[in-house]
Amino acid sequence: MTAEVPLTIEAEVREVARRARAASRALALATRAKKDAALRTMADAMLARSAEVLAANAEDVDRAQAGGTPANIIDRLRLDEGRLAGMAAGLREVAGLADPVGEVVRGGVLANGLELRQVRVPFGVVGMIYEARPNVTADAAGICLKSGNAVLLRGSSSARSSNAAIVAVLRDAVVAAGLPADVVQLVPGESHDSVKALMRARGLVDVLIPRGGAGLIASVVEESTVPVIETGVGNCHVYVDAAADLDKALAIVLNAKTHRTSVCNAAESLLVHAEVAEEFLPRVGAALQAEGVTIHGDEAFAALDGVLPASEEDWGTEYLSLDIAARVVPDLDAALEHVRTYSSGHSDAIVTEDQGAARRFVAEVDSAAVLVNASTRFTDGGEFGFGAEIGISTQKLHARGPMGLMEMTSTKYVVIGDGHIR
Amino acid sequence: MTAEVPLTIEAEVREVARRARAASRALALATRAKKDAALRTMADAMLARSAEVLAANAEDVDRAQAGGTPANIIDRLRLDEGRLAGMAAGLREVAGLADPVGEVVRGGVLANGLELRQVRVPFGVVGMIYEARPNVTADAAGICLKSGNAVLLRGSSSARSSNAAIVAVLRDAVVAAGLPADVVQLVPGESHDSVKALMRARGLVDVLIPRGGAGLIASVVEESTVPVIETGVGNCHVYVDAAADLDKALAIVLNAKTHRTSVCNAAESLLVHAEVAEEFLPRVGAALQAEGVTIHGDEAFAALDGVLPASEEDWGTEYLSLDIAARVVPDLDAALEHVRTYSSGHSDAIVTEDQGAARRFVAEVDSAAVLVNASTRFTDGGEFGFGAEIGISTQKLHARGPMGLMEMTSTKYVVIGDGHIR
Repeated sequence: MTAEVPLTIEAEVREVARRARAASRALALATRAKKDAALRTMADAMLARSAEVLAANAEDVDRAQAGGTPANIIDRLRLDEGRLAGMAAGLREVAGLADPVGEVVRGGVLANGLELRQVRVPFGVVGMIYEARPNVTADAAGICLKSGNAVLLRGSSSARSSNAAIVAVLRDAVVAAGLPADVVQLVPGESHDSVKALMRARGLVDVLIPRGGAGLIASVVEESTVPVIETGVGNCHVYVDAAADLDKALAIVLNAKTHRTSVCNAAESLLVHAEVAEEFLPRVGAALQAEGVTIHGDEAFAALDGVLPASEEDWGTEYLSLDIAARVVPDLDAALEHVRTYSSGHSDAIVTEDQGAARRFVAEVDSAAVLVNASTRFTDGGEFGFGAEIGISTQKLHARGPMGLMEMTSTKYVVIGDGHIR
Repeated sequence: MTAEVPLTIEAEVREVARRARAASRALALATRAKKDAALRTMADAMLARSAEVLAANAEDVDRAQAGGTPANIIDRLRLDEGRLAGMAAGLREVAGLADPVGEVVRGGVLANGLELRQVRVPFGVVGMIYEARPNVTADAAGICLKSGNAVLLRGSSSARSSNAAIVAVLRDAVVAAGLPADVVQLVPGESHDSVKALMRARGLVDVLIPRGGAGLIASVVEESTVPVIETGVGNCHVYVDAAADLDKALAIVLNAKTHRTSVCNAAESLLVHAEVAEEFLPRVGAALQAEGVTIHGDEAFAALDGVLPASEEDWGTEYLSLDIAARVVPDLDAALEHVRTYSSGHSDAIVTEDQGAARRFVAEVDSAAVLVNASTRFTDGGEFGFGAEIGISTQKLHARGPMGLMEMTSTKYVVIGDGHIR
């Protein structure tokens, strides 16, 4: 089972993780005031040193263009003054959020007089493995710092110059604010070996959060001995029930599919109850196609012009594009069975005015978010009012759904006695 | 990374897991009344069919004796009417506890009128891997059933007849109470291959909880792709500060070490501040030795009669016996550094009347439970008032410290709108 990691890079990554762990101790004890000051200093520095970051980003963009990277990926990679201002604003927003560390989750006095409190504490060291967007570098550093965690950042090699420049700026700011630089570090190395070393650094790294495509996440889950929080694969469904208000249904389907297609809470599958199919299918078909959506439909949908026939594969696909799989179901049971079979457990919605149907859907759909008469696009830390989001967990352990500052903490029990023995 | 599992046993285990998943759906929707009725029926059946269980247990005991198993292990394996009554009482107690499923963890109305609730839901399927004691079989089945989880039980092969008999009794009771038998199942197979198959059943099994020795837990953590909750390794410290009340300190050290030695919350290491060493060492040395404890001491302790010299290994050892490692430290910083280096992160205690020292110890010791003027033996679900305990987590993800019914659940977000779109 031991991953084959050349000793040099493994040793280097472990040394970085050890420094993170040492630095995390000071950070765990830092007051909110000190952490917020650091976050504001980081924000100021991002703006003050924008030329440096943009020059580094231009190197990444040039390299990507020379390598024939597609335009949409280059767009995600590219920074400008506006995006840097957004990153700085994000850091300021995190400074404005309540500090989760020290919160008493529950507490009381036991029958024997012992005082018992369960208190939020940082994890310690968080590893982030993520793809293209360099803004994640600043966002993750800010959320981790506020929640008292040292962070090890492993972005994609396509953004390496940008990430290095951003981290250099943030580290200087952290030091200026009186915290150890090593609370924010890049994971050294460009190869998969350095990711492997990070995934095997159990005991030094407390949790790994992969953010990116399904392939990245699956490989981390498979290879890591460090506990992982899975994020973000979303095969989200909208089910239009027999008792749906079809105007609401139309608006929700369109919003869930077309508001933003590249995100994990976009709808990928549409289920329609047979009783409303005759009326709803032509309406939803025309409306989706008017927005440029390609429908991959079952027989009933395929009767509409321009609808492609769906294969078994379509039901399980996260398109992340202007495509949707669509099927007519005979009843709520069949809708539930379809969702149970194909949903990735991210966000699934029912549109219905029937309280009984809504209640069953909510109870029986086993997903991070179950929505009634609302677009799947609402499953989001910002929309939920968390103020900042490090990702959306699709696993059941620890955190499920959007993860804000609170989800970036563990707890410990504090027990105060006066010579108590059993 | 793929574990090499012969297809037959792997297929068998996966089939059992699939049945558990199907059964878990009905259980997740069962009312508290129905689950409590099942738990009481299970308790009744354990008593009514005690002869059957005791006969099966006698087979295990005979086999163990013939194989030369040590007497203390045979004692843990052996059941009698009293222990069966204890198992039945445990099931009744779980019936009396509040149902965690459906609890609204947080909720409110968002600015746009969406109603948002975070609600407790079962994990789905829980795998338990545990050693000798057959009473864990009934305890785990009860806690899992109450928390709405189907359970896959993999006890040690030395208890196979007992476990099979207990599970047969429990399954009949579950069916009599109107729930599917497959919410309680044994994992088939005696070999490590069946454990491997369970550890690779990601997607079918939601969480694995190993309970047993450090070797078992380490191997599960290493090999499992199913998320794991680590339990129970406890290298627990008692630190007697310069400002300790030495009478309280003596009582706490004795209780933490000798009240029960084979448990994870027993103290394994004693640290004494140099300022009180001269007075405290002879007292604690004599008292521990009077209780039959062997002290593995540093130079200062080794000056006492009968103290063995401690090696580096002693500081990291979970003895689970009448042994304790003991060291004099020059100050609180050295005590914290020792704990940081050697603690397994289970339970560590300070004895002090100094508020500042207590505050620092609580803040800086990164363990599941940090105790002030109280025995480490209090880290326990029963003592904490949880009513039932499936184990004590020593990891930071999901649950940390004693795990009761609440820790056996995940959550989901329920979002109710009226045609809401972004």
